[in-house]
Amino acid sequence: MTEFSVIEACHIEALGSLLGQKGLLTVPADMASYETGARYDKGRAAFVARPATTAETSAVVAYCVRNGIALVPQSGNTGLVSGSTPDESGRQGVLSLDRLTAPFELDRINRTVKSGAGLRLSDVNGKLEQSGLFFPIDLGADPRLGGMIATNTGGSRFLRYGDVRRNTLGLTVVLADEAGTVLDLSSDLRKNNTGVDWKQLFIGTSGAFGIVTECVLNLEPAPKQSATALLVPSSPEQVATLLVAMEDALGSYLSAFEGMSGNAVRAALDHVPSLRNPFQGGVVPGFVILAEISRSNQPREGEQPLDAVLEEVLAAIWEREDAPLADAFVGPPHEIWALRHALSEGVKHSGRLIAFDLSFRRGDIMPFLAHMKAEMPEHFEDVTICDFGHIGDGGVHFNLVVAKDDPRHADPDFEANLREWVFTVAVEQFGGSFSAEHAIGRKNQASYNKYTPDEIRRLAAGLKTITSPGPLGAMTF
Amino acid sequence: MTEFSVIEACHIEALGSLLGQKGLLTVPADMASYETGARYDKGRAAFVARPATTAETSAVVAYCVRNGIALVPQSGNTGLVSGSTPDESGRQGVLSLDRLTAPFELDRINRTVKSGAGLRLSDVNGKLEQSGLFFPIDLGADPRLGGMIATNTGGSRFLRYGDVRRNTLGLTVVLADEAGTVLDLSSDLRKNNTGVDWKQLFIGTSGAFGIVTECVLNLEPAPKQSATALLVPSSPEQVATLLVAMEDALGSYLSAFEGMSGNAVRAALDHVPSLRNPFQGGVVPGFVILAEISRSNQPREGEQPLDAVLEEVLAAIWEREDAPLADAFVGPPHEIWALRHALSEGVKHSGRLIAFDLSFRRGDIMPFLAHMKAEMPEHFEDVTICDFGHIGDGGVHFNLVVAKDDPRHADPDFEANLREWVFTVAVEQFGGSFSAEHAIGRKNQASYNKYTPDEIRRLAAGLKTITSPGPLGAMTF
Repeated sequence: MTEFSVIEACHIEALGSLLGQKGLLTVPADMASYETGARYDKGRAAFVARPATTAETSAVVAYCVRNGIALVPQSGNTGLVSGSTPDESGRQGVLSLDRLTAPFELDRINRTVKSGAGLRLSDVNGKLEQSGLFFPIDLGADPRLGGMIATNTGGSRFLRYGDVRRNTLGLTVVLADEAGTVLDLSSDLRKNNTGVDWKQLFIGTSGAFGIVTECVLNLEPAPKQSATALLVPSSPEQVATLLVAMEDALGSYLSAFEGMSGNAVRAALDHVPSLRNPFQGGVVPGFVILAEISRSNQPREGEQPLDAVLEEVLAAIWEREDAPLADAFVGPPHEIWALRHALSEGVKHSGRLIAFDLSFRRGDIMPFLAHMKAEMPEHFEDVTICDFGHIGDGGVHFNLVVAKDDPRHADPDFEANLREWVFTVAVEQFGGSFSAEHAIGRKNQASYNKYTPDEIRRLAAGLKTITSPGPLGAMTF
Repeated sequence: MTEFSVIEACHIEALGSLLGQKGLLTVPADMASYETGARYDKGRAAFVARPATTAETSAVVAYCVRNGIALVPQSGNTGLVSGSTPDESGRQGVLSLDRLTAPFELDRINRTVKSGAGLRLSDVNGKLEQSGLFFPIDLGADPRLGGMIATNTGGSRFLRYGDVRRNTLGLTVVLADEAGTVLDLSSDLRKNNTGVDWKQLFIGTSGAFGIVTECVLNLEPAPKQSATALLVPSSPEQVATLLVAMEDALGSYLSAFEGMSGNAVRAALDHVPSLRNPFQGGVVPGFVILAEISRSNQPREGEQPLDAVLEEVLAAIWEREDAPLADAFVGPPHEIWALRHALSEGVKHSGRLIAFDLSFRRGDIMPFLAHMKAEMPEHFEDVTICDFGHIGDGGVHFNLVVAKDDPRHADPDFEANLREWVFTVAVEQFGGSFSAEHAIGRKNQASYNKYTPDEIRRLAAGLKTITSPGPLGAMTF
């Protein structure tokens, strides 16, 4: 119990006896990293509970519900919407998944693994390396599994492998009721339609309906060959043409079709000097596409190498009368992906970032970007659009960068107004989503409230009441 | 109003005024096909309502809920678990989707279609033929979309394309409340995590939570090349070895890995004389695997033909020291699939069928089948096991055939005892599912009641109350 805590000492003592010394943090220095989000946000935790088992999680949750103590579940804490950090009241406890790292049971024939929700994505794929299988969600960040489930992460290979929802077979969940009820939804079956598929409720709902402690994941054969190219469309309108042409020619070979604005690419090249500038004369185009094809077999004799496949397809597109391609070059995957994965950090370092995780029908991405490029200066001066994202699945990381010393940062209305305008155009004008793959946290609670029909909000509130009536999660449904 | 109806005339009149002449059937001859299931079951309908729009569906449902009239939604009526037909009371109305065939709006760039839930699978793919895209669920039957959603159908290409859940982006649903509330969940976005994903509730739940009137579906590039082979494993234990070897070698090329018992193959060959017997000397092996590889691009110069790819992979497996393969031959896809698709009818015609739609961890399928083969004669004499199914996704159509003139058919306990024993072994001993891809109807209500934990049943009942409190569907949650 420290001088800063605003939770009664008896509760800290009780939680300590449930969790042991390693399981409960109350000293500010120990709690600091759990209170600080990946981007700007900083709250204050009453305590950090770190259960190591489902049973401990259940005991903590039950205790907190019975005593009206709010919990914010935290996984890898890599999210960008303030969904995993406590608010500033100091009255919320953090429930961290970071010690829930067991079990890890690979079923090679079933192509599944049962894993603790506290393992990091990189740990999971590291442990799987010898098996020839992998968990096929590709991200710049390195979250823990529970948070990936709570946000239904998609990432850069969605086009081939889908999102976390598609790759989740089973879950073990602790509900926020007075018993800390454990729901065993840990099926390892691929076809299983025997009633309501309750696990769906805990995927993409930011931990508000229960805490995931274990999961059963689908694994895929790891790719053993890949080829990548950078494509420069001859105009923004031709991006959709290129996507359709590539899908028609390559089908399920195509594993990524990512969009990168020139601004984002320049920011990455500036921030990471070791990156090679791959463009002719170093001149970064206004918009670039990263296309990847891959396959999971070892190269076989007689098989056309993937580089040649990609070059042939691009040559055919190059010959088209509508000339969708202004330039294209096939290059080494590690180099091209290094550029793609540097975008996020590059953009973040180019100024103060106001980030959006939007999605659209695939054909609406470029019209939306064109609209924003044209309208931004009229609505907000000196805001640079550094978007990148996933053309293949409609996701757009719509990043707005404002100089760090811009005086408008002192005005709390500036960011709020900017956000409202962007959401209005994205959702109301273009039929897009205000949260593609980051789910909901305090940062987009206002959008949830605004854009969720009353009927759906009523149903969600009812569902919350019958499953997890206790105060759980950073947002409210 | 006919002499057989047990619903008050005023209700028939009211429904008639909501639906018009084409929209309401009350004459027994007109209703007969709606009262009869695809396999054995036969009920009696108070009326058949055939709304043509979501608004009409809402009006009918609202009227029925307000007046306590139970409705059984019926789509293509091709299901096998008595989920789409009325019971024998004559007091349930059928709500047929067969006139809900509009809209049909293809978005070529987004690779999606918005469709009325009453279209048949074959109609959908027929309309899409020119686009180069298809809805990638492959079935022997030809259901309508609403029923495919209500059962979360998987089929034979699950391994590549997944189930209906994976390929559903949005739904329009009418709830069974007094207002006939229409939930617009018709998103056409691929990444969209903005709260509870309500559409999941209506997928695989047999229409009990609401009636799907429209859907937005993911489409995939249609395959343009395929190659198939029949594989004879050297022992049942080697089936899993073959599956892993094929996946390792072929990755996402592999689009089907189906198992067929010798009994099922013989039944198909007997029933459909035009089928070619592909086996040496006409001797059908005890178990055969159908493997398919496919890709969606037009053949390219320099590209190895798929037949050669498949032959090469099989040759490498043939050389293995553990010799998993006893025999294998690559043959024309239309011929090999004709045999596969004839299994269901063949088995049905070989006697009285008692069918199960089970699923297992992939490695448990062959042990389960071996166990049943050994134990069946001790428990039930003269019952032939004619299984086939989907090794790649764990699904097993576990068909038991009893001679049509067997006197035990007169004993109502015979089938009940047989079913109970099979479910006990499959679910309790092997950890399998009692319903892989047919969801729940009257036929497996008892299994739902037995195998669903109390906590889940309580939650499901609560969810039913807050969404669709009215009497809807053939089963109860």
